[in-house]
Amino acid sequence: MPELRKDPVTKRWVIIVGDRGLPAFAADEPNHPQQDRDVCPFCPGKEPGTPPEILAYRDGDQWLVRVVANKFPALIIEGILDRAGDGLYDKMSGIGAHEVIIEHPSHSASFATYSVREVERIVWSYRERSRDLRKDPRFKYLLVFKNSGRPAGASLSHPHSQLIATPVIPKRVIEELNGAENYFHFRERCVYCDMLRQETASKRRLVFENERFVVFTPFASRFPFELVILPKMHSSDFAETSDSDLRLFAIALREAMGRLIRALGDPPYNYILHTSPVNGSPHEAYHWHVEIITRMTRVAGFEWGSGFYVNPVSPEEACRRLSECTLYEDADGHLVERPDSLLPAKESR
Amino acid sequence: MPELRKDPVTKRWVIIVGDRGLPAFAADEPNHPQQDRDVCPFCPGKEPGTPPEILAYRDGDQWLVRVVANKFPALIIEGILDRAGDGLYDKMSGIGAHEVIIEHPSHSASFATYSVREVERIVWSYRERSRDLRKDPRFKYLLVFKNSGRPAGASLSHPHSQLIATPVIPKRVIEELNGAENYFHFRERCVYCDMLRQETASKRRLVFENERFVVFTPFASRFPFELVILPKMHSSDFAETSDSDLRLFAIALREAMGRLIRALGDPPYNYILHTSPVNGSPHEAYHWHVEIITRMTRVAGFEWGSGFYVNPVSPEEACRRLSECTLYEDADGHLVERPDSLLPAKESR
Repeated sequence: MPELRKDPVTKRWVIIVGDRGLPAFAADEPNHPQQDRDVCPFCPGKEPGTPPEILAYRDGDQWLVRVVANKFPALIIEGILDRAGDGLYDKMSGIGAHEVIIEHPSHSASFATYSVREVERIVWSYRERSRDLRKDPRFKYLLVFKNSGRPAGASLSHPHSQLIATPVIPKRVIEELNGAENYFHFRERCVYCDMLRQETASKRRLVFENERFVVFTPFASRFPFELVILPKMHSSDFAETSDSDLRLFAIALREAMGRLIRALGDPPYNYILHTSPVNGSPHEAYHWHVEIITRMTRVAGFEWGSGFYVNPVSPEEACRRLSECTLYEDADGHLVERPDSLLPAKESR
Repeated sequence: MPELRKDPVTKRWVIIVGDRGLPAFAADEPNHPQQDRDVCPFCPGKEPGTPPEILAYRDGDQWLVRVVANKFPALIIEGILDRAGDGLYDKMSGIGAHEVIIEHPSHSASFATYSVREVERIVWSYRERSRDLRKDPRFKYLLVFKNSGRPAGASLSHPHSQLIATPVIPKRVIEELNGAENYFHFRERCVYCDMLRQETASKRRLVFENERFVVFTPFASRFPFELVILPKMHSSDFAETSDSDLRLFAIALREAMGRLIRALGDPPYNYILHTSPVNGSPHEAYHWHVEIITRMTRVAGFEWGSGFYVNPVSPEEACRRLSECTLYEDADGHLVERPDSLLPAKESR
């Protein structure tokens, strides 16, 4: 069983998986994992080889989104949450859940092409799995994230996201909760709502907005072309998002990802859903959001040692370049490079 | 001028350099930057092309260690430390110092071969530059670090370390200072001294010790083969290390790095000197140390979103493998693969 261990100085938790062997040096691998479709474990036809299906969105016999347990989980669901000391140190059994959201049956689908309806099914599955997993009182946090491209940690190329349920509230989340609560005590306003007001007023970093969501490049971006998606209505909990808001969230997520991919040519990226913890006292000062980071720059010793990041692209410049992008849809609502009407006549089909 | 910007929620500072353009996708580059020696800016003979020399350790006409300003600094030394608000946000002019410690005249020298005397000159230069830079009251922290291999952020292959002086105390340092102070208030003992006692007693994670320093794999290691070098005597400030202790530190650093390189075959790595801030109230509960991290695993969305790390190698297993390594010296005190006496007879020279 994996073991959770806590650093006695910084209170950071680490998962010691311990029996997987040492991975190959990361940079010896290509930028995008290029699996042969024949061996892809997530393609249609390979369903018997995956761990049991937890949830699926189907159209007749064909699944459109499929959620399965991770075959190589960072935390495992069976067992008792056992805490123990080891002299100075604290440890805990590695209890949790680790699920994979297979976003699309097509191996080559991605946010470069997804229709709004396709993104809506993906974020629907995030919400449904969050609503189900929070019923387990052992879990204190549910983290939904996506790795795309090897530098971002993806080891499979079939489009997928992940959900990890943890038995403690992660340090990064505690930092945001505390930051939001301190600001609220000081100003009696939500810090994210204040950011929303400033960004929509100044427009210097505003990439996209609809009735319910904004997309902007944050003032203190750590990475080039970093993006935040923020709901306009104050809400601490993603899982409470209504169906109609979920559609507007899907539109904002597709705009953000579609523009990023168009502007940068399919960069390695992560996105991470930041929402409030489960099974504890409510965190009403918090405001759920999505963080999108590109992984084109390397994190070096200075960043690790200081927590300071050096970003070679200002968020204002990143916003300008993302705002210039135009997304085109084909008749089915899928994103395309250019609409047929813009193709030169000799290429028209 | 670079701009320092502070995240309003997490209080994390970011340096927006802003005019360097977007780097190439990181993983398209080879694991080790393989510069042609003809174009290496740090090799002997290229001194006129570097920024002015700040410090050197010489033997006659030949420098053995050379410190110069960084040609592409993250922070710049000329200017006034100007703080300003921008609505909700805080920013500051990017004042600081960014120096490069060229560790050796030889392009191919490294911790795989360094003699104790060579390492001693390198750590001497860290101490001397720290003692000088702390005289500038604009600086609040001095961070010494080394990037080796591209995945660890190195862009030049000639052996070098770096020193960055920052006008604020970095977040990661504040976390360690607070952690050490909280523990001290609770137990009236130093948390690092307690770790030292537990690690030297249990020996399960102890890789090396001499009269003044220990090297161990930390209980909650984030990365495979992570190492900590800790002085046995409680001391918050690296810059106060005496000449005789500096030699024992050099021995410990060479043991740690030599074993890591032997065991893993020159992995990408960072090391970071953690010491107390300068030009402020003293932090007597703190205990300076060196953190050595390998960069063989990728940091994915889960780690970014949670601050949780997943480590596939337990620190106990890493310690076992590092403890099995034997370092051999040639007659000059340089590390070699195997001593001549262990070579098969037919290979003996």
